[in-house]
Amino acid sequence: MPPIVTFTSDFGLTDWFVGVVHGVIHELCADAQIVNLSHAIPPGNLDAGAFVLEAAAPDFPNGTVHLAVIDPGVGTERLALAVAARHQFFVGPDNGLLDWALSDRECRVHAITEERWLRHPVSRTFHGRDVFAPVAAHLALGVAVESFGPRVPRAMRRPYAPPRQRDGRLEGRVVYVDRFGNALTNLSIEWLGRAFAGVEGHDLRVDVFDRHIDGIGTSYGDAPIGALVAVMGSSGRLEIAEVGGSATHRFGIGVGDAISVRRRER
Amino acid sequence: MPPIVTFTSDFGLTDWFVGVVHGVIHELCADAQIVNLSHAIPPGNLDAGAFVLEAAAPDFPNGTVHLAVIDPGVGTERLALAVAARHQFFVGPDNGLLDWALSDRECRVHAITEERWLRHPVSRTFHGRDVFAPVAAHLALGVAVESFGPRVPRAMRRPYAPPRQRDGRLEGRVVYVDRFGNALTNLSIEWLGRAFAGVEGHDLRVDVFDRHIDGIGTSYGDAPIGALVAVMGSSGRLEIAEVGGSATHRFGIGVGDAISVRRRER
Amino acid sequence: MPPIVTFTSDFGLTDWFVGVVHGVIHELCADAQIVNLSHAIPPGNLDAGAFVLEAAAPDFPNGTVHLAVIDPGVGTERLALAVAARHQFFVGPDNGLLDWALSDRECRVHAITEERWLRHPVSRTFHGRDVFAPVAAHLALGVAVESFGPRVPRAMRRPYAPPRQRDGRLEGRVVYVDRFGNALTNLSIEWLGRAFAGVEGHDLRVDVFDRHIDGIGTSYGDAPIGALVAVMGSSGRLEIAEVGGSATHRFGIGVGDAISVRRRER
Repeated sequence: MPPIVTFTSDFGLTDWFVGVVHGVIHELCADAQIVNLSHAIPPGNLDAGAFVLEAAAPDFPNGTVHLAVIDPGVGTERLALAVAARHQFFVGPDNGLLDWALSDRECRVHAITEERWLRHPVSRTFHGRDVFAPVAAHLALGVAVESFGPRVPRAMRRPYAPPRQRDGRLEGRVVYVDRFGNALTNLSIEWLGRAFAGVEGHDLRVDVFDRHIDGIGTSYGDAPIGALVAVMGSSGRLEIAEVGGSATHRFGIGVGDAISVRRRER
Repeated sequence: MPPIVTFTSDFGLTDWFVGVVHGVIHELCADAQIVNLSHAIPPGNLDAGAFVLEAAAPDFPNGTVHLAVIDPGVGTERLALAVAARHQFFVGPDNGLLDWALSDRECRVHAITEERWLRHPVSRTFHGRDVFAPVAAHLALGVAVESFGPRVPRAMRRPYAPPRQRDGRLEGRVVYVDRFGNALTNLSIEWLGRAFAGVEGHDLRVDVFDRHIDGIGTSYGDAPIGALVAVMGSSGRLEIAEVGGSATHRFGIGVGDAISVRRRER
Repeated sequence: MPPIVTFTSDFGLTDWFVGVVHGVIHELCADAQIVNLSHAIPPGNLDAGAFVLEAAAPDFPNGTVHLAVIDPGVGTERLALAVAARHQFFVGPDNGLLDWALSDRECRVHAITEERWLRHPVSRTFHGRDVFAPVAAHLALGVAVESFGPRVPRAMRRPYAPPRQRDGRLEGRVVYVDRFGNALTNLSIEWLGRAFAGVEGHDLRVDVFDRHIDGIGTSYGDAPIGALVAVMGSSGRLEIAEVGGSATHRFGIGVGDAISVRRRER
């Protein structure tokens, strides 16, 4: 069965870099199904890249190989990593991009040092082509993650401010804004479940700036066009959306903005 | 032989939504060849989405599965459809997006209600992933359109103003502007043939705003750079183009603008 | 083994043109792995298209078919070409787009005239679909380049101003600006090696506008954030880059700008 290799980068689709990486993978693993997650990550934006992987990877089957290249430190001493975690594989630079994989306590993290798996000569400016793509292809072919080099005891993580509970409120922040202008937060269904065990969504209230939204719904269509709604989104996170519009455009909500949830007063 | 699944949406290519849909299809139908038609449909623009399907689908072979997700009503009571029409298959929401398939009098239209074909749990915000993608994959695997649920007697159509003939003129409108600034109209080769049977293209005249173009050609290169030309385009519709430039930028022609054709005076 | 077909065009990804070309290729060669190099070439920009092919094609394996459609003369008398060169295949219009293939003295260049390989009826506005895609698919299936039509003795080339040596300097120009704002030049590693045989990169100096950069490095990370650096890039050309930023945005370097290299004074 053709293996699935996903690919996330800040390369854009205007230049030929994404195509060349596809070519290197197909040369080694002819029948791989390569799935582009995003190549529109702003150059060097590791937070956005790490979030895309965290949001998308759980929807892929076991055995999927996730290749991620946002690599401002290419050509420096930063390590290149191959990771087995959550029944999937992850390949990318050691700069926090693979944070979601690394947050698995069972993860196996290896530095890519074995020259025989690489594309030669290895440039110092395009490891996507010369290092990460061939390793992703070999993982897709079934090469064990241990084959690429020694175990790395402490790979780089993203600085991460978890939600916190205070005075009966669960406080979080906006971590991503999608194409539709929906603001995705770090308030996951797990966090909400812990903070408000046994409370129904419609008995909660969401505060953002000087506005509040009564009730957390499950669909954008639960309210009239133009209404601001709070919804448990498809990746299991609280989202702020405008029905039939863009919450971000209309209310100026953006990455980093504070958001909190508490019980409604009745 | 690997089946072809096309995919049209308003998801954009910046977020991971298109990638996740590809992943769901490949998980079920590993060797599917997924062809992106467009993911740049403006959010919620059903007219543009329906036109892309109408323009592109006829160029695909029999048996192709067309997946289309522009779905502002996701999570509401709108139906999800699987359609067999014109020797192809179509999957998408019941909001008019599949109009071209539905215009086939022989079409077989079924609601998607059988839970066993879906991805569980079914979210209320991302039916592209949980409902439409798995159904498209199963159609590609050969599952019959009748398997997904009951027949739908009256699916939603797009409001459609057909061209009309009046005082010797055939009157239509611009329905799409492409990347090159060419204005595609609803004046198809069939409409022109009916209105002006036996008349050659160079004996016709096209009126748009206060301009007129003498003759309908078959190639953009028939006139000098900068000339405004009327051409029978590659999808069988009258197009207004500027040779070596953008008719839309130069003359401000846009979707909805009136256009008419009549015989030239000699 | 599934053949690789790359695809470069000025079609953009908003309309359905790229998807339709993919469909035509898959209809004929079901298991082809189609790799998009770029579809964001500015409409009609043959220089940019030719450069993308020149930069990307060397990274693909022998036997790859490169389909390229930037074709302002579609429907006129310009020839359609199928070329075997550098152990790969190239398909596109005879307008200089395939210059890199044609610069191989061993290239075999054939006009596409044999109707049986084409998609019928052949439109006069979309040869990407009707002429070039089916020929690319047949090349991928192993049809010989000679089968498509007669040999073309003199195909169109791009006007090309090679670097020149003068007063101890090697003078070239910027030929492409990539997404990261790096300015790629026509000063290849071969030209630099000839002009400065035996001289180390750090003993050279690069002049651009009124600035100079001491030393040619191999990695963007060799200097502090914000520094302007000269680097031998991944496609073997001298690049001007800003570490952690965009040289193009900051210094206004663009395509056509002059650049020269000489020995550093010590």
